[in-house]
Amino acid sequence: MIGIGVVGYGYWGPNLVRNFSETAGAKLISVCDLRLERLSAVRDRYPAVEITDDFEALLRDPRIDAIAIATPVSSHFRLAMRALMAGKHVFVEKPIASTVEEAQRLVDEAAKRRLVLAVDHTFIHTGAVRKLREIVQDGLGEVYYYDSVRVNLGLFQHDVSVVWDLAVHDLSIMDFVLQEKAVAVSATGMSHVAGEPENIAYLNLFFDSKLIAHVHVNWLAPVKVRRTLIGGSRKMIVYDDLEPSEKIKVYDKGITLNGNPQKNGEKVYQMLVGYRTGDMWAPHLNVTEALASELRQFVDCIDRAETPEADGQAGLRVVRILEAATLSLTQRGRVIELEQARCVA
Amino acid sequence: MIGIGVVGYGYWGPNLVRNFSETAGAKLISVCDLRLERLSAVRDRYPAVEITDDFEALLRDPRIDAIAIATPVSSHFRLAMRALMAGKHVFVEKPIASTVEEAQRLVDEAAKRRLVLAVDHTFIHTGAVRKLREIVQDGLGEVYYYDSVRVNLGLFQHDVSVVWDLAVHDLSIMDFVLQEKAVAVSATGMSHVAGEPENIAYLNLFFDSKLIAHVHVNWLAPVKVRRTLIGGSRKMIVYDDLEPSEKIKVYDKGITLNGNPQKNGEKVYQMLVGYRTGDMWAPHLNVTEALASELRQFVDCIDRAETPEADGQAGLRVVRILEAATLSLTQRGRVIELEQARCVA
Amino acid sequence: MIGIGVVGYGYWGPNLVRNFSETAGAKLISVCDLRLERLSAVRDRYPAVEITDDFEALLRDPRIDAIAIATPVSSHFRLAMRALMAGKHVFVEKPIASTVEEAQRLVDEAAKRRLVLAVDHTFIHTGAVRKLREIVQDGLGEVYYYDSVRVNLGLFQHDVSVVWDLAVHDLSIMDFVLQEKAVAVSATGMSHVAGEPENIAYLNLFFDSKLIAHVHVNWLAPVKVRRTLIGGSRKMIVYDDLEPSEKIKVYDKGITLNGNPQKNGEKVYQMLVGYRTGDMWAPHLNVTEALASELRQFVDCIDRAETPEADGQAGLRVVRILEAATLSLTQRGRVIELEQARCVA
Amino acid sequence: MIGIGVVGYGYWGPNLVRNFSETAGAKLISVCDLRLERLSAVRDRYPAVEITDDFEALLRDPRIDAIAIATPVSSHFRLAMRALMAGKHVFVEKPIASTVEEAQRLVDEAAKRRLVLAVDHTFIHTGAVRKLREIVQDGLGEVYYYDSVRVNLGLFQHDVSVVWDLAVHDLSIMDFVLQEKAVAVSATGMSHVAGEPENIAYLNLFFDSKLIAHVHVNWLAPVKVRRTLIGGSRKMIVYDDLEPSEKIKVYDKGITLNGNPQKNGEKVYQMLVGYRTGDMWAPHLNVTEALASELRQFVDCIDRAETPEADGQAGLRVVRILEAATLSLTQRGRVIELEQARCVA
Repeated sequence: MIGIGVVGYGYWGPNLVRNFSETAGAKLISVCDLRLERLSAVRDRYPAVEITDDFEALLRDPRIDAIAIATPVSSHFRLAMRALMAGKHVFVEKPIASTVEEAQRLVDEAAKRRLVLAVDHTFIHTGAVRKLREIVQDGLGEVYYYDSVRVNLGLFQHDVSVVWDLAVHDLSIMDFVLQEKAVAVSATGMSHVAGEPENIAYLNLFFDSKLIAHVHVNWLAPVKVRRTLIGGSRKMIVYDDLEPSEKIKVYDKGITLNGNPQKNGEKVYQMLVGYRTGDMWAPHLNVTEALASELRQFVDCIDRAETPEADGQAGLRVVRILEAATLSLTQRGRVIELEQARCVA
Repeated sequence: MIGIGVVGYGYWGPNLVRNFSETAGAKLISVCDLRLERLSAVRDRYPAVEITDDFEALLRDPRIDAIAIATPVSSHFRLAMRALMAGKHVFVEKPIASTVEEAQRLVDEAAKRRLVLAVDHTFIHTGAVRKLREIVQDGLGEVYYYDSVRVNLGLFQHDVSVVWDLAVHDLSIMDFVLQEKAVAVSATGMSHVAGEPENIAYLNLFFDSKLIAHVHVNWLAPVKVRRTLIGGSRKMIVYDDLEPSEKIKVYDKGITLNGNPQKNGEKVYQMLVGYRTGDMWAPHLNVTEALASELRQFVDCIDRAETPEADGQAGLRVVRILEAATLSLTQRGRVIELEQARCVA
Repeated sequence: MIGIGVVGYGYWGPNLVRNFSETAGAKLISVCDLRLERLSAVRDRYPAVEITDDFEALLRDPRIDAIAIATPVSSHFRLAMRALMAGKHVFVEKPIASTVEEAQRLVDEAAKRRLVLAVDHTFIHTGAVRKLREIVQDGLGEVYYYDSVRVNLGLFQHDVSVVWDLAVHDLSIMDFVLQEKAVAVSATGMSHVAGEPENIAYLNLFFDSKLIAHVHVNWLAPVKVRRTLIGGSRKMIVYDDLEPSEKIKVYDKGITLNGNPQKNGEKVYQMLVGYRTGDMWAPHLNVTEALASELRQFVDCIDRAETPEADGQAGLRVVRILEAATLSLTQRGRVIELEQARCVA
Repeated sequence: MIGIGVVGYGYWGPNLVRNFSETAGAKLISVCDLRLERLSAVRDRYPAVEITDDFEALLRDPRIDAIAIATPVSSHFRLAMRALMAGKHVFVEKPIASTVEEAQRLVDEAAKRRLVLAVDHTFIHTGAVRKLREIVQDGLGEVYYYDSVRVNLGLFQHDVSVVWDLAVHDLSIMDFVLQEKAVAVSATGMSHVAGEPENIAYLNLFFDSKLIAHVHVNWLAPVKVRRTLIGGSRKMIVYDDLEPSEKIKVYDKGITLNGNPQKNGEKVYQMLVGYRTGDMWAPHLNVTEALASELRQFVDCIDRAETPEADGQAGLRVVRILEAATLSLTQRGRVIELEQARCVA
């Protein structure tokens, strides 16, 4: 039985607490928050769980094997590092940290101490994204592009741009679904509120192959859109997360290339493009709550000394892109190479 | 009565011929094409219209006041220039020419000879886009962003990239709808067919204000999308050209900014963002065929010595962005300033 | 402060308990259920609320002013009648009872004792249905038809047909929205599971005017649909309850009649129908939880000795149509007059 | 080569003329209409086709083997009968005639003279409906229900109700797709224009099995809907004819019945219903113009002395239901048996 402490009972913490309290193999010991009214909300809802406003108490508690962190991103590094240094396994909200350097230090610390470090890339535990990976990696052929639109009205954040708030989801999904990793990134965007971070942004991800990825995130859209198009040489996918049931549609569509060498005055090669349109197929998806299986995986990894799917390295890869995108945003989309960083890592 | 000659009876030419033959004040005299089977198609359908494979014959014909050009873009400049030099008014398919230099020379020639030079930016004559301009210029408030997705499967072209084929529509619509003109452009994209131009591309348009514009064009998408989001300080718009009736939806949504000066240790100003959601409204749209009113306007402009809404300058502005985007595409999205060009023009 | 007892903690009961525990002016005293595991679920969640498996205990408890009943429909009459006879105000799940006779007896008992008798027609407390009534009663003109489709896969019930399970919602909405009351009903349907009640049914409601109403309910549909069309002489409405935001769309569409008296051999009157199409408008809707305002209204009515919008009479009217429809179902849609029943009532 | 004469060049006639002029094996000889301006429209468009306002001329013309009739329904019988009596094969617009008696006489006359009698049930020649039949007859299992909604604004007709105008399509599709034939029909509806036929109607079709069919047709709807749900024991279908590409969606969904005999006090048999949800699949559809293959089939049937898919019997079956529905409409949905009629036929 793995003893769990949760720190932060704001927006996402209640989901962690609810799910940990139902995770086989885990025992939720204590919840920590600095706000007394949040602690009293825990007590009303979970009378058997201890509450505290003292993070150190969690660190000292020998019944607690792992700490889950659901606080603002600026505190992730500090809390996670202290938990690791106290010998606790750690589960951190996304993004794992505010900078590449912080993320790298967490990864190193966890590795040194052989502790499980997991980042809460919740989407990769949904039935939709798991099916997406299955299809992309077996059936799509060569992956041509990945295009995501994730827009809605609100909630504007004051400390991070829309890239850190919304694009982080797309980056974590791409990290899981695509076999290739981006080598460079550029981003453009705009803030429409004076003195505040960008509320609309467009990211380009460049790869060594012919794959191109693009993400549109926007806090100021009249409608909510969560739609990803993925094109491959053999199939194409529309993943619409707002569809109640058929979230993933696989189209047997594409182009066929007829290399037809014709000698003539102007072109040696006349490439003919043909169009292929076949059936569409929407696979049935597992609808288990993603967070439930994510936490079960975290607990299992502690038990068996295994590595979770979204480990510290995954968290680091995502933060590396976020950091580069943020830099690019200030320079009207200058391309930032991720290569060097990659070599260092 | 304005005598009309049409050159090119391929994909779009038949629409010009059909509409000119029904335009009050115009008389379709002759259709020119190099392919005899296309000419015989004209004769079958319009026994009263003359046919010829000799472009010079149109130029010499005193009954012909204006020439409409619906040939491949690479021939636009040559044919349009000869028509202007023969004293004919000219209506050219979009884009007006292959380069800024060509477009500029057409503009200059038409100005010198006081001839009407129109470019076929068909979309600006649709009920939807005319309503769009009306709302954007009176009701939207400050325009924050313009975001268009124009994707489908096919038709791949061999001589121009998807930017020249599809984004040209968005650029012509923006030129008509937005009061501001872009000052810089960047574009990223990819070709998935060896040796062929880009089949997917993302354009960013930069303005002097806080407006940002973005266009996603793609010949290799599993579904057809024609959707534009426009955000303003007072209203927001979704323009979906595939909707059979409610193509334009105006949302009384947005953010409200409460400048709330609070003295405290860290921030003198605490900006609070509020969200406003009100009714949605889909205005009834005029459904007249766009090309019909476009040609009527062309003929009227000749009659009255007026300037059409999409004149040579509009065609030039669009080509300037297309040319800059094409350059940017080869440099992974380097920003190309349009300022200087603007000054020259 | 109104003391509340809730009986039944199955599917809907938890919603009542959660909302009553947050209703100003109400104090949730006790929850009753025969199943001990359900009672222990109450205790875990609401430690301060008393639990019992003895319905009589609620009746005897002087702190309890009102009893809310969320048990299977077959027990509604018995429990509600006993509560009324014990001097308690009553709030009953829909439908209010299993037969017209039962419903009538509840109405009479409540009237005699001057107690509040409310039926849980939840939908009429949604922002959408309240807006619907506003538009139908002021703006639609003469109401021509009301057409509802309410279909999905599951949940098949064993004791009542799909009419009692799903159409009850439409009947309660119509009762609230339309100013006219139906005078006759017919219904056709089919059971596809041997020995079980109808899982698909079509209801026709007849009125004294030119209004016609129709309801399609189905437990065996591949997709979920919740869509109502309402046509009037001045406007038409689409109410789609599955739309996340624009649930109600009002179309300025319809026909215009030109009475054009022409004497000729065959017709003295030639009626010409014209078509009118204008804007569409989706009003912003209140998104408060319906049940919360419904329970607040119930408590207020007790306080002020007023009649709730969905009182016993409303419950009775709906059961009268359900009972007639059930009879008609067995006779392939024979029309059952509601007139006589109406006179008696 | 089969010589063709077309009578009626109004709304649908031009489609017949255009398609016959391109049908291999057919030669369009002459078009007949009483209105001179319609005949001149034929001459402008098809200079090689003869025109006449004398129907008898078609009958006498030995080059004409078959006559296609696209006139108002009230004249179908008279024109078709004269054509058959003149020894011509006949292709008639839907519905084949105004009454069962007329339709029967046409069928008998054609049979007696061994002439091909076809009715223009265009929909059964679309890729969508052909695929529908394939799936319904092989894959759906036992067919449980067929539910169609076919509504829009306009065009009101003065001589026939919406049933004859719109439901005729559904009846012809059902006749083709379902293996069973209806044994009884009922219909309710309403006219909202004084003195005019019903503009909204609901049809029920009863079968000997557990199949139930229902059609909602409406000329006064704010939106256009063309949606059919078909439920079977193994699969379920949504056929949406307004979808640009995926018109047919096949859902691997349904119920599973567990006959679980349990002796207990109340029920010997406890039937448990389970729900099964699997993949959805949208087959690729043939997009050839339906009318083209329909006319080719007509010509082929004449050549080979075969029976077309939509022969006089199919036309008669559809008219039999239309006539019964019309009778039922006047009696608030009284069930009209088709059995007897069936025996006679």
